[in-house]
Amino acid sequence: MPTSTATVRPVLIAGQWRDANFSDTYQATDPNKNERLAAEFPVSSWQDCDEALNAAVDAARQLRKLPSAKIAEFMERYADRIDAAKDSLVESAFAETGLGKSPRLADVELPRTSNQLRAAAKACRTGNWAMATIDTAAGIRSVFEPLGPVCVFGPNNFPFAFNSVSGGDFAAAIAAGNPVIAKANSSHPETTRLLAEQAAEALTETGLPAATVQLIYRTSHADGERLVSDARTGATGYTGSRGAGLALKAAADKAGKPIYLELSSVNPVAITPAALAERGDEIVGEFITSVLMGTGQFCTNPGMVMLVKGEATDKFIASVTDKFKSSPAGTLLSPAVAKSLSSSIKKLCDFGAELLTGGGEPESGRCAYANTLLKTTASEFLSNPEGFQTEAFGNASLLVVADSVEQLCAAIGHLEGNLTGCLYTAKDGSDEDAASAISFELTPKVGRLLNDKMPTGVAVSAAMNHGGPYPATGHPGFTAVGVPGSLVRFGKLTSFDNVRPNRLPAILQDKNPTGETWRLVDGKWTTAEVA
Amino acid sequence: MPTSTATVRPVLIAGQWRDANFSDTYQATDPNKNERLAAEFPVSSWQDCDEALNAAVDAARQLRKLPSAKIAEFMERYADRIDAAKDSLVESAFAETGLGKSPRLADVELPRTSNQLRAAAKACRTGNWAMATIDTAAGIRSVFEPLGPVCVFGPNNFPFAFNSVSGGDFAAAIAAGNPVIAKANSSHPETTRLLAEQAAEALTETGLPAATVQLIYRTSHADGERLVSDARTGATGYTGSRGAGLALKAAADKAGKPIYLELSSVNPVAITPAALAERGDEIVGEFITSVLMGTGQFCTNPGMVMLVKGEATDKFIASVTDKFKSSPAGTLLSPAVAKSLSSSIKKLCDFGAELLTGGGEPESGRCAYANTLLKTTASEFLSNPEGFQTEAFGNASLLVVADSVEQLCAAIGHLEGNLTGCLYTAKDGSDEDAASAISFELTPKVGRLLNDKMPTGVAVSAAMNHGGPYPATGHPGFTAVGVPGSLVRFGKLTSFDNVRPNRLPAILQDKNPTGETWRLVDGKWTTAEVA
Repeated sequence: MPTSTATVRPVLIAGQWRDANFSDTYQATDPNKNERLAAEFPVSSWQDCDEALNAAVDAARQLRKLPSAKIAEFMERYADRIDAAKDSLVESAFAETGLGKSPRLADVELPRTSNQLRAAAKACRTGNWAMATIDTAAGIRSVFEPLGPVCVFGPNNFPFAFNSVSGGDFAAAIAAGNPVIAKANSSHPETTRLLAEQAAEALTETGLPAATVQLIYRTSHADGERLVSDARTGATGYTGSRGAGLALKAAADKAGKPIYLELSSVNPVAITPAALAERGDEIVGEFITSVLMGTGQFCTNPGMVMLVKGEATDKFIASVTDKFKSSPAGTLLSPAVAKSLSSSIKKLCDFGAELLTGGGEPESGRCAYANTLLKTTASEFLSNPEGFQTEAFGNASLLVVADSVEQLCAAIGHLEGNLTGCLYTAKDGSDEDAASAISFELTPKVGRLLNDKMPTGVAVSAAMNHGGPYPATGHPGFTAVGVPGSLVRFGKLTSFDNVRPNRLPAILQDKNPTGETWRLVDGKWTTAEVA
Repeated sequence: MPTSTATVRPVLIAGQWRDANFSDTYQATDPNKNERLAAEFPVSSWQDCDEALNAAVDAARQLRKLPSAKIAEFMERYADRIDAAKDSLVESAFAETGLGKSPRLADVELPRTSNQLRAAAKACRTGNWAMATIDTAAGIRSVFEPLGPVCVFGPNNFPFAFNSVSGGDFAAAIAAGNPVIAKANSSHPETTRLLAEQAAEALTETGLPAATVQLIYRTSHADGERLVSDARTGATGYTGSRGAGLALKAAADKAGKPIYLELSSVNPVAITPAALAERGDEIVGEFITSVLMGTGQFCTNPGMVMLVKGEATDKFIASVTDKFKSSPAGTLLSPAVAKSLSSSIKKLCDFGAELLTGGGEPESGRCAYANTLLKTTASEFLSNPEGFQTEAFGNASLLVVADSVEQLCAAIGHLEGNLTGCLYTAKDGSDEDAASAISFELTPKVGRLLNDKMPTGVAVSAAMNHGGPYPATGHPGFTAVGVPGSLVRFGKLTSFDNVRPNRLPAILQDKNPTGETWRLVDGKWTTAEVA
């Protein structure tokens, strides 16, 4: 093991910021300069994982004995601290990701993150996520309980809102009563460290077990697979590339450990000729905003537009092409993203997609790639649906032009599972038959169906599904965003059969523990006490 | 392919009872005589699976267009038909399983089966399983929708209530709006065929797609794995042995297809000395009834009893041993079950368990094995926890005697996931500390915790969890029994974002579709219309 030096950042294990056990280090890159940042982060050896797991098991036992309100207090305190530390967090995230400081990082993503923690805290406090169910006649009561230590692997594209130590999976796992072992995304380790510092302080302030939140920066692939499949692990949340996610899934599945994955998605947008004839310019504007925002680096970026040939479609294509050309290419998150985008575009061209604008090599002075628009026909798509669904993560999109609505429907029938699917039709209702046919094919393929709206906004709503059929995620029944839905992923269903009243968890006793907790009592949802 | 003959039973595919494509046949055994029954059943080739999958995809599309009430009507009609066909079903099930005609088959299991279908029909009709969620401010509404064709593999021990064509998984999959491809359990194919005949008639009578229910009797292992991982399959429900289940799980996981498994479980029962001192005879009686009922062939059979050494425990062991000796050994379901039980007992003895009574070889004139009671110490258990958790499915149980409550808790800490865990303590509350310590360890290990009650009853209740941590099942968040909970396994979460009101599924429109459907509207559960 190399000797740790002052520049190698410490890991957070069992409540201590201490030197990592590591065999290698890495640095993040400032994508605006394509230059490595100074701070070095350790690639932890298994020993760090092992110690984190032991500490997490102990924390999980302690957390089970604490009232939910204590956990909620921690989350709320942490949220306040994130808000207070805004300036330094935004500076760090900007340096590591190149995402805009304002409004994106400071005014959109950071408040979303602290508010997401507060919403999860509220669900934790009421227990409304836990589906308390009481059958007085049978003498059986059930509820979702904590599952045990949760490993969270965050993605590169949201340094706050999906960060492994502050984002959606983190908030859900903690609110469900579990400790988290966070694995930083390698593109923004310093931002993750700064967040973890706030989390650690908030833990101390609220008296939660110190190992409720732990942080390592990176492991070998083999140790990552060992971590998600370890007997001490309760479950894993992962957001990122398909390849790495499926390797973790294989390991977790084999060990019988739940793993929730958010992988790739091309997010098809179907637009009928009548919609374009009616409000083509408006739709062009909505599409351009959605597809180029954040340099297209959203899980729900509209990477495929499905059209039916004709005059209005030709006009749409010409207009979008112009706007792709005239819009400046945004900065990408990292050299890896630029390289991957370039490689995906090359693949799509090799499969026969026509390059309308963009393509080429990544810029050298910063992490960037030309806004890229590609086109193919639905019949070509149908000849190689897998190839044409290659995700080009970033400021790129593929237009698929069908001969007819029927052919467009056939193409949709060959789509893989996606997070979202959009349908734009005429507002005057003149193409309701087409709308109906397309919706029927599209709905089973997507986690969220949108009408007359682009997919990039992901509201934190009880009705949100940020999920979808495989391979968009690993299971079609769970959402990664939305309170209380996202919490149940990290719960274990427990039924209490004839259990003596004084031994029941508070949420299952006759008295409603908060006076506002929703429980399914003898077939009726109510906040009342059990009579 | 052998020419089919009059004695080879037909499969039910795409609404037709037709000759199977098969390479081999098999016969069930009458376990009371240890003799093969006359009827021959085909081992279908992939062609049958392929045709069933195509028909199921088509049926799934048609079902999505039908109102839930139509599906509910089918299930209710089918339930009535099962009740009407009771005599022939009971005769067949008795011949194939040796389970008692009355009360077990005729008066307990058959009514449970038809009532389970009716309960699922009710959940289907109201949509109360589908968790309709409406966020009026965000304009987002979500609901669980059908997932697509469901393959169901039923177990040997419940020819009606868990039958792949009439049992819990079947009812849940159909009620969630999915067609079922049923794979008969090889121990009772004729009973399964008779049930499928009733299902097919009920489909015709209620106008549902004929391929809503299809039946094959057996496939090769490879074709089974292909079936659960096929792109056309939505999900799989499996109840049975761990080995076969894990092979299917590996195939399904790799393809990203949900699979719900109910595998093995030893169902630990912890009994404190104070409970035995207080009411030892009573507990002996409850245990004997539970462990020998149905010749111990329940998923929730109490296969392990955890005790603390002492006088009351010695008396309990002596009394249970006497009762095991004096009770007649019941008939086992099949030669395979007798062989497997004998093999498991041998293993446990090899690991060092002491044989208190029973053991030996299976009987030859019928499928049976001596009532078998084994004993070990908690310290021996702790030296080989995996070995001592070998499931001995049938009329057998292992007593684990600890030196202290602390040691008993340590042993529990090494248990695998189980369906159930029971705790018997003194009713006078004198050992509440022990109860608390044991419960704390036992709860995370089990899907259902019981107090002062044996685990073999599995009520169909909204609060029932017939599930549990791996390897009892494949996921700790789902139940295989209980309406509406079991249905959500076969649902896909879909969010409708800004979708035009007229295009929303009925359950998500402002008007409550039945007037009694529970929906989470703006954070409150209600049956009211959206204001």
